[in-house]
Amino acid sequence: MSATAQAFAEKHGATLDQAIAALQSRGYFSAYPETPSGKIYGESAKAEAEAAFAALLGKPFADGPGQVGAELSPWGPKLGITYPALDVATLVARAEAAAPAWADAAPAHRAGICLEILHRLNRDSFLMAQAVMHTTGQGWAMAFQAGGPHAQDRGLEAVAYAMEELSRIPGTARWAKQAGKEQLLLDKAYRAVPRGIGLVIGCATFPTWNGYPGLFASLATGNAVIVKPHPAAILPLALTVRTARAVLAEAGYPADVVQLAPDTPEAPLASDLARHDAIGIVDFTGGPAFGRWLRETVGGRKVLHTEEAGINPVVLHSTADFAGLCRNLAFSLALYSGQMCTAPQNIFVPAGGIATNEGHKSFDELGAALAAAVDALLADPARAAGVAGAIQNPATLDRIAAARGLGRVLRDSAPIPGQDAARTATPLLLAVEAEARDAWGEERFGPIAFLIRCADADAALALAAGSARARGAITALVHSTDGAFLDRAERAFARAGAALSENLTGGIFVNQSAAFSDYHVSGANPAGTSCLTDAAFVANRFHIAMARRPAAA
Amino acid sequence: MSATAQAFAEKHGATLDQAIAALQSRGYFSAYPETPSGKIYGESAKAEAEAAFAALLGKPFADGPGQVGAELSPWGPKLGITYPALDVATLVARAEAAAPAWADAAPAHRAGICLEILHRLNRDSFLMAQAVMHTTGQGWAMAFQAGGPHAQDRGLEAVAYAMEELSRIPGTARWAKQAGKEQLLLDKAYRAVPRGIGLVIGCATFPTWNGYPGLFASLATGNAVIVKPHPAAILPLALTVRTARAVLAEAGYPADVVQLAPDTPEAPLASDLARHDAIGIVDFTGGPAFGRWLRETVGGRKVLHTEEAGINPVVLHSTADFAGLCRNLAFSLALYSGQMCTAPQNIFVPAGGIATNEGHKSFDELGAALAAAVDALLADPARAAGVAGAIQNPATLDRIAAARGLGRVLRDSAPIPGQDAARTATPLLLAVEAEARDAWGEERFGPIAFLIRCADADAALALAAGSARARGAITALVHSTDGAFLDRAERAFARAGAALSENLTGGIFVNQSAAFSDYHVSGANPAGTSCLTDAAFVANRFHIAMARRPAAA
Repeated sequence: MSATAQAFAEKHGATLDQAIAALQSRGYFSAYPETPSGKIYGESAKAEAEAAFAALLGKPFADGPGQVGAELSPWGPKLGITYPALDVATLVARAEAAAPAWADAAPAHRAGICLEILHRLNRDSFLMAQAVMHTTGQGWAMAFQAGGPHAQDRGLEAVAYAMEELSRIPGTARWAKQAGKEQLLLDKAYRAVPRGIGLVIGCATFPTWNGYPGLFASLATGNAVIVKPHPAAILPLALTVRTARAVLAEAGYPADVVQLAPDTPEAPLASDLARHDAIGIVDFTGGPAFGRWLRETVGGRKVLHTEEAGINPVVLHSTADFAGLCRNLAFSLALYSGQMCTAPQNIFVPAGGIATNEGHKSFDELGAALAAAVDALLADPARAAGVAGAIQNPATLDRIAAARGLGRVLRDSAPIPGQDAARTATPLLLAVEAEARDAWGEERFGPIAFLIRCADADAALALAAGSARARGAITALVHSTDGAFLDRAERAFARAGAALSENLTGGIFVNQSAAFSDYHVSGANPAGTSCLTDAAFVANRFHIAMARRPAAA
Repeated sequence: MSATAQAFAEKHGATLDQAIAALQSRGYFSAYPETPSGKIYGESAKAEAEAAFAALLGKPFADGPGQVGAELSPWGPKLGITYPALDVATLVARAEAAAPAWADAAPAHRAGICLEILHRLNRDSFLMAQAVMHTTGQGWAMAFQAGGPHAQDRGLEAVAYAMEELSRIPGTARWAKQAGKEQLLLDKAYRAVPRGIGLVIGCATFPTWNGYPGLFASLATGNAVIVKPHPAAILPLALTVRTARAVLAEAGYPADVVQLAPDTPEAPLASDLARHDAIGIVDFTGGPAFGRWLRETVGGRKVLHTEEAGINPVVLHSTADFAGLCRNLAFSLALYSGQMCTAPQNIFVPAGGIATNEGHKSFDELGAALAAAVDALLADPARAAGVAGAIQNPATLDRIAAARGLGRVLRDSAPIPGQDAARTATPLLLAVEAEARDAWGEERFGPIAFLIRCADADAALALAAGSARARGAITALVHSTDGAFLDRAERAFARAGAALSENLTGGIFVNQSAAFSDYHVSGANPAGTSCLTDAAFVANRFHIAMARRPAAA
């Protein structure tokens, strides 16, 4: 029993209750304000965070042996931060030593500690924004929101699901069965037992937003966790782990319940960790090559949740707001330069064009309007940098260069003016035929999109849903003024496992996934094995142990 | 909308509600009477079932091409029943044709149909008893209870879990977010989408009890199901599928929502079915060799739930009822000749013996008393046949013969007198040293048990729990009058993932697992990947599809 953990549980009890209710109602809910306002976070918070970030640069993040780390900001500067690195055996031994105390903690105490961690991460969102911006290349506003409050909401969502699942298991039961004249009586005791050490393998584009669901789902269900960040984006998860360890220690639990396992591209740890017998759960966000290796190597024996690659489609049938369609879709293409797992890549369009409130628009007119909307959005270089951010991985620039030959260029990609230190690239938009599956039929990660000429709208829908099923997709977008077409689209994408948005013309974008309301990833196509935000995501992180003994009547 | 399905839902609504409540309270609950009483099932039910069974023998079960089937009763007679067999492509094509209508059915209607199937299976429990007895070799009473009402309860339990999980997803939600002065409004729609065709691979010892959880969990979550029975135990699942198809057709759904896929040892279908892209879920009960193949081949890509092999341990520390201990344990060893997945194999005993209410008992005295208790239990041949049943697989007799050389024979195995037509074998009990891990350290399926001499009780517990973790175990039994020792045992077996029974001396046996109260299989050791009776078992049989569109304020 930890008085501190109990205090955390009481302090955050109302938040947890609201979160659990929100899971069911799925209306708007957020526990962590997304507005980077001084009124909320403190007037000096931004300046202090910038100073704190500057103070981290060029030195070890913490003392310890085997310092590793070579993060480079996509915005230019080398971070020069190194992190103490442990080998697999040491990491596992420490996790195993810490695990029993955490497994024995009351679920409500574990939840209280998780919510205190999230609360402190929220308080430090301005520092997290710097860390996320300068590892992922996100613009500052996105780095703040997606790296901070939105990621924290995803963590809270996982804790809420875990508490829901755990609450379904009674601590004890009296079992009384009449067998003829005899009454058989048993006293039974149940307990949720964590499955084993959780391994969270982070990604380079959304290290916190994609990492927190697995981290907090495993923690809340009683598993110790090893967090293996992507070598290009260690700092956001290092800050996270530091906060988690501080809260754990304060509450009287071993800090090693959460450990950071930084590595290098030359000596990667992920496969050795994943294969280790002590690891019971693996959460992975990253490319399909390692995802496939995980599925084949540990998938049948351990709990494995992956988010891999997908090709998100758009189907244009008709619209009542052509300008809004173009503006909204241009923003989705430009936002963080197509480096979101939810960003659209393939825009399927009838060869005969589409009906709009501005009259009929041919395939070419549509392409021109969309290109113009991107141009307009990015006309101001400062705004362009904020929206499009920087390119996380240099290989993406090579991919853009190679993609230019794949179709007719409707809009070329170019660096953002005035961002000479940064690695930037605006959207490349290409027109191709439906038959050019070699061009559009695979994921081309980054600011690369295709306008695909299809026989008609139903052919467009069939190609879009078919590619989602076959190659994976997390989101889909359709524009139509025809209810019957929307119904067909809903059925097709439900089956294909892509979250569908319809007729977005305003301030909501297909790229956005709202915690507590939207289900992120379906597990029903190759984009990932699991939804990150449903009961199944947490329900297998523990097993239920039971003991029964005869009772006196 | 099916009026018949609606009527089924209403007819069985109270049963379903009770079942859902029982999942949570986990006290005693059963919807299907386990007493084979004429008052309950009709005075002529037994005679009619025997006649109906006799009428099935020696002819095709149903018309159709490719008749297969060569079932031999372990009690003697050849059944001579053949079953129409389809190839994989045809089975899958028919399942895919039937699937959309079933996926679109209202969850409450699907549940109503499932409960009507279970209701009719219950009504026909006497016929099922014949079918189970003459394929598995179970004694008649067990064949009735485990093959009939207890299996039906397991099916109902799966439906109840499915309805619980499905009820957590609202059909629609209004999402309203204040963004500055603008209010962003979305209407969202959610639907549970079945993951794909379910494949149930049946076993030869408990074809219904082990098959119904997967069958009904997949059906209730909207998946069409192909049932691939073990070639030695087709009839129980053929009867099940026939009933399911009749109810489906009556309710206006395609009968092919459930199909039987009988095969032969020479041309097995399971691996081709499991690998087929259209199969989304595999439920398997059987040996670890095919279990491993499934885990490695489809485990990372499909939903896979297996129950494989385990070595269930007993730890004897002390007892307040030595006679009761021996009587109870003897029954557990003899019941269905150790062919239950929950039967004990390894009895770990301190070298120095144990304290009992009858004074100190040495290792050898304990062995002699246990052997005598088995002898006493089986002294009457008719009762012996009823308790021990027949041996399902001839290979088990070879295993007994080979096992005699593994230790000192405390009690030899022998055929049951007067059962000349049947394949029977009473328990073989061997004394071995703890070091003889080659003897006791692997599963020896059948009536083979080891009394294992350990340094002391804690060494016994460590060996027992260690082998459960390493080699798998579904159940464990401990006898101790020391509360601290019981606590240590609870912790050890909780971690090892074996369901623990303590101090059983009366009418409850470690082999028994009660629906709605006991969790069967933990998924936490090699005995299986999953619990068959928890939320995780159903939660990943569907994904949640969503569609969202801007709403007017």
